[in-house]
Amino acid sequence: MTSRQNRTRDRAERGIPEATVARLPVYLRALHALQDRGVATVSSEELAAAAGVNSAKLRKDLSHLGSYGTRGVGYEVEYLVYQISRELGLTQDWVVAIIGVGNLGRALAGYGGFASRGFRVAGLLDADESVIGQEISGMTVEHIDRLEEIIAERGVSIVVIATPAAAAQTVCDRVVAAGVTSVLNFAPVVLTVPEGVDVRKVDLSIELQILAFHEQRKAGGPDGYDPMAGGVSGNGRASGYVEAVEA
Amino acid sequence: MTSRQNRTRDRAERGIPEATVARLPVYLRALHALQDRGVATVSSEELAAAAGVNSAKLRKDLSHLGSYGTRGVGYEVEYLVYQISRELGLTQDWVVAIIGVGNLGRALAGYGGFASRGFRVAGLLDADESVIGQEISGMTVEHIDRLEEIIAERGVSIVVIATPAAAAQTVCDRVVAAGVTSVLNFAPVVLTVPEGVDVRKVDLSIELQILAFHEQRKAGGPDGYDPMAGGVSGNGRASGYVEAVEA
Repeated sequence: MTSRQNRTRDRAERGIPEATVARLPVYLRALHALQDRGVATVSSEELAAAAGVNSAKLRKDLSHLGSYGTRGVGYEVEYLVYQISRELGLTQDWVVAIIGVGNLGRALAGYGGFASRGFRVAGLLDADESVIGQEISGMTVEHIDRLEEIIAERGVSIVVIATPAAAAQTVCDRVVAAGVTSVLNFAPVVLTVPEGVDVRKVDLSIELQILAFHEQRKAGGPDGYDPMAGGVSGNGRASGYVEAVEA
Repeated sequence: MTSRQNRTRDRAERGIPEATVARLPVYLRALHALQDRGVATVSSEELAAAAGVNSAKLRKDLSHLGSYGTRGVGYEVEYLVYQISRELGLTQDWVVAIIGVGNLGRALAGYGGFASRGFRVAGLLDADESVIGQEISGMTVEHIDRLEEIIAERGVSIVVIATPAAAAQTVCDRVVAAGVTSVLNFAPVVLTVPEGVDVRKVDLSIELQILAFHEQRKAGGPDGYDPMAGGVSGNGRASGYVEAVEA
């Protein structure tokens, strides 16, 4: 590898702030929506509006990917989809196992948004004998006893934990011991993992709390008028999520 | 109201950046965990670590609430819980209706995290005759035809849409026409709402995409070593979500 290649790798691999990484999926969602409408190029202002961020931030974020657009034309939608997908690692298939097939696990198993983003659910596991063998979204629920075997055989690299809170840490420990280093946790509990393992926790009530904040302001009447509420409303059309990731 | 009260209201109601609002639920979660362990006071460093942000940002966020802690002592956990809860509007009960009781709607109906945060689910609605009348988490599923009536009678202020994508906009239009101005959207579609209505969209695949980014870096071996992965891992213990809201 030449030193120039090294520098390029360095920029791409070390230079992307975590907050930018968190916004890339939001840009990608907006770009997919543009593709669906047959749009070939998009200005930074249009894309920023669709994603709910300001355009300076968008341009800065995309510059980390080495993507600067063309003056007067903007960004090529298809190429930008490719660049962001490559950056996020979505140009390859990620094999996912879901542990815990209660209502949430079932909802996740049937969630169309995973497959379309390069995530292939290759295993549904549970400890409850009464659900083992059930067919859910075209897959058969397997026993948690086979966890290590399934992870190894199917090349599972990301595990989704959707068990009750009490079971989550034990399951997580087994998953980590089996060599998995990426865990998405839906259980309402904080998981402890060794260095080198990424855990992301989804708290379904956080978005509700943010809505409550604005609802309270609106309920306050003229005295409680919240100038931010309008902004959220405007962004809400594109994606409320962006509000949460924009600083 | 005196002018001093006015200034206080102004600071509290107009001065909180949206990114701070998005982090308040994360601090609240960390504080609740401290309360569960019987901790009475917490330093900004400890609380920041538990929430996965840096302590300067935490102190700045809390200063927007007029909360500055005590030098050498830190923050009083109970009082800070009260302050943040009040700020977020969680000291009052919010009445929530869930529309669409597929797997996701059922999972949300049974989600303990709502009730403990001041959200009371007062209605489960669906259009599918075969589920109307079913008991889910102690509630009876009602027909979507009764939507307007239920919203008015029970004082529903936040609606959670968990319908299939194709039904979501129609449901949203009815909800908005019935006077609801806060919508949490789980359907994989972008909803259009008039000014003054807040929509927040939950995309369950976004967190997976962020995991994939780091997984890709880790898979790259020494050349692909990602210095950020360690940071995420460290924060992941407390809350991966914070990564998404910290700029």
